[in-house]
Amino acid sequence: MITATICTIGDEILIGQIVDTNSAKISTCLNSIGVKVVSMVSTSDTETDIINTIEGALKTSNIVVITGGLGPTKDDITKKTLGKLTGATAYVENQEQLEIITRILSARGMVPLSVLNRAQASVPNSCKVIPNEVGTAPCMEFEIPENRYGHKAVIYSLPGVPFETEIALPKVMDSIKGHFQLQKIFHKTICTFGIPESTLAQQIEQWEDNLPSNLHLAYLPNPLLGVRLRLSIYGTSEEEGLAELAENEATLKQMLGDAIYGEGETSLQETIGKTLKERGMTIGVAESCTGGFLASLFTSLAGASEYFYGGIVSYDNSVKMNILGVSKEVLDTYGAVSQECAEQMAAGAKKALGTDYAIATTGIAGPGGGTPEKPVGTVWIAVATPDGVISKKFAFNSTRRNINIERFAANALNMMRLQLIK
Amino acid sequence: MITATICTIGDEILIGQIVDTNSAKISTCLNSIGVKVVSMVSTSDTETDIINTIEGALKTSNIVVITGGLGPTKDDITKKTLGKLTGATAYVENQEQLEIITRILSARGMVPLSVLNRAQASVPNSCKVIPNEVGTAPCMEFEIPENRYGHKAVIYSLPGVPFETEIALPKVMDSIKGHFQLQKIFHKTICTFGIPESTLAQQIEQWEDNLPSNLHLAYLPNPLLGVRLRLSIYGTSEEEGLAELAENEATLKQMLGDAIYGEGETSLQETIGKTLKERGMTIGVAESCTGGFLASLFTSLAGASEYFYGGIVSYDNSVKMNILGVSKEVLDTYGAVSQECAEQMAAGAKKALGTDYAIATTGIAGPGGGTPEKPVGTVWIAVATPDGVISKKFAFNSTRRNINIERFAANALNMMRLQLIK
Repeated sequence: MITATICTIGDEILIGQIVDTNSAKISTCLNSIGVKVVSMVSTSDTETDIINTIEGALKTSNIVVITGGLGPTKDDITKKTLGKLTGATAYVENQEQLEIITRILSARGMVPLSVLNRAQASVPNSCKVIPNEVGTAPCMEFEIPENRYGHKAVIYSLPGVPFETEIALPKVMDSIKGHFQLQKIFHKTICTFGIPESTLAQQIEQWEDNLPSNLHLAYLPNPLLGVRLRLSIYGTSEEEGLAELAENEATLKQMLGDAIYGEGETSLQETIGKTLKERGMTIGVAESCTGGFLASLFTSLAGASEYFYGGIVSYDNSVKMNILGVSKEVLDTYGAVSQECAEQMAAGAKKALGTDYAIATTGIAGPGGGTPEKPVGTVWIAVATPDGVISKKFAFNSTRRNINIERFAANALNMMRLQLIK
Repeated sequence: MITATICTIGDEILIGQIVDTNSAKISTCLNSIGVKVVSMVSTSDTETDIINTIEGALKTSNIVVITGGLGPTKDDITKKTLGKLTGATAYVENQEQLEIITRILSARGMVPLSVLNRAQASVPNSCKVIPNEVGTAPCMEFEIPENRYGHKAVIYSLPGVPFETEIALPKVMDSIKGHFQLQKIFHKTICTFGIPESTLAQQIEQWEDNLPSNLHLAYLPNPLLGVRLRLSIYGTSEEEGLAELAENEATLKQMLGDAIYGEGETSLQETIGKTLKERGMTIGVAESCTGGFLASLFTSLAGASEYFYGGIVSYDNSVKMNILGVSKEVLDTYGAVSQECAEQMAAGAKKALGTDYAIATTGIAGPGGGTPEKPVGTVWIAVATPDGVISKKFAFNSTRRNINIERFAANALNMMRLQLIK
């Protein structure tokens, strides 16, 4: 199997100033084309450390993907070091990247280019340039002769800026496919919500045990997305592979029913949005404990304004009463964290916002503030629909505020989704 | 200088399923006590890979901090492998951890303990246990004889769950201080907002150039927190160190004035909340383009209900009119992204929520939807105060939705903060 090591270069990661998000993205892409990532390494930007790290990686890997250390200043030495390592004899100015640099810096009023910025278009003659469309540092590809490590190897050097790396990755994957004969691999991701991972595993155990050996199942749990099941099939033709994935997907749908909310890269809020758009219907929210987070999940999607009208963050009881119309009696008798309050909030938001649906949350996110009857982690969620209001209590076993807010919001979305497929 | 390598073990990271956030946290702690992190490595959970990685790390490092691979199932082999590497001759059951395991699993109704869960309390006799108060897998400390790598070395094995690692880190740092003679180091972080990093660097260039050699300055930029300046001083007594940090802090305050909003681990919303609480005043928000994100920043802080009353996410124009009282004339004449609309939103939110202050945002987050006059990245922010309404336009040069939403919200918070110190 073709193997890869991912290297990040730069002190910002080593001193803990930034979290390395590039490696996970690169790894996901490599896995999806059938390349196995055997190691990830972060190293400082000294020549010795960079060379040792890459030489070490090339012993075990066919592919080394490097990010970082490509800035214009003199402490960024990745390009120079890679030139040295691969026996470059000269530097050449890449016209395509020079045009991109000029375009980007013109927009910032930084023309004529400084010597340092122009130098970013200059690359060792041992590399092939993959233009960076959205940044000034070009991506570079260095092929290493087969006799050097006993196997063919290619080094890719990408910028450290996550957005620039992301844009470059499809081109890098195409290049890898050109260099190596990769085993064919096809994927399908089934998104589920509402069944805990261990319960889900039990429910599908028998099916999983009988999967053919070239079909692999991975569980991808995520607080906002639920448990996603990724099916990967190796070593078949495209036609056979897709047919087998479709067949297994159908079996999973039979076993898991309504717990499945979509496939591929989607989310609960996207699923809800799609359905509402199709039906020409609208939604709003009333949030106490989730404090705006539920609304922000809806509005994180471009085009949400077609169905998401807005929300009321009713943190203080006065807002619950004045804008949502929650009655003083309900607050006095049952408290803000109650079925009665959640239902009045949902109904009130539907009316105040003028929407077809409204979701309401009221609970105790913690870490403090719970009581024996309503401990931290308790939440009442209500959904107002054109036919009435439904509500449900959830109790989560955590005192961590951000974790509770995420769980409250995700379960509110799931309750809404289930109403739409009833 | 005492050096460290951080290792993460497990396929979830290598296949890109999860982003490794532990390493950055561990590194930040190690740096704060004067330990230099020379490398970070992620490896798969096979015995060979784990041993090779640790042996490699011990050649260059005094300390190896490992996370992951401590679960109860048989594919988690870190503990067994470390026992083998350090010459353990037996396993012993740690009573303190056993009690914690029993307490945690009782709460989940999982007593009597299964064989697998009880086995988590059992550790190689070559280690010292650092109890894990919030999880079932104990933290372990293995001291390696000095003659083995030519220098004293200690291996720490921590659970992979980020929350459990975080809780364990102070105890690990104390243990490191006991094992090694560390250079004394003191830090102070000054938080600034509103001056871009490069401009800030120019403003304080002369001061920075004249810093004594034992005083180090680091720039920590963050979209929501602004640019934080971390001053670190080495090799002095505590008294002298703190005095010198205080003196330099005073100089920075003279140079940067109102751009400084706090020190240490704080945020714009925390600074605002503290001031409002002191004054017994309240705040609310009206959000269009930030869609609930601004409210969620306020409500992410425990105790926000003392000053944060709530918010209106007025995504649709009908909500701007019906709840916030924005006039149809303003929307028809100037559009939703306008000074007039932002000011009416802020004034309307202040009134509807019954607060002393209100912040409003209306802009174009993108990626689509801009016009030549109002391109993506344009936002109008208004702040309603007891004395009237102020507003300001910002234009950011990005078409990425999440980046724009963060910038809009952070600048809205900063405008509010500046009003409070006027």
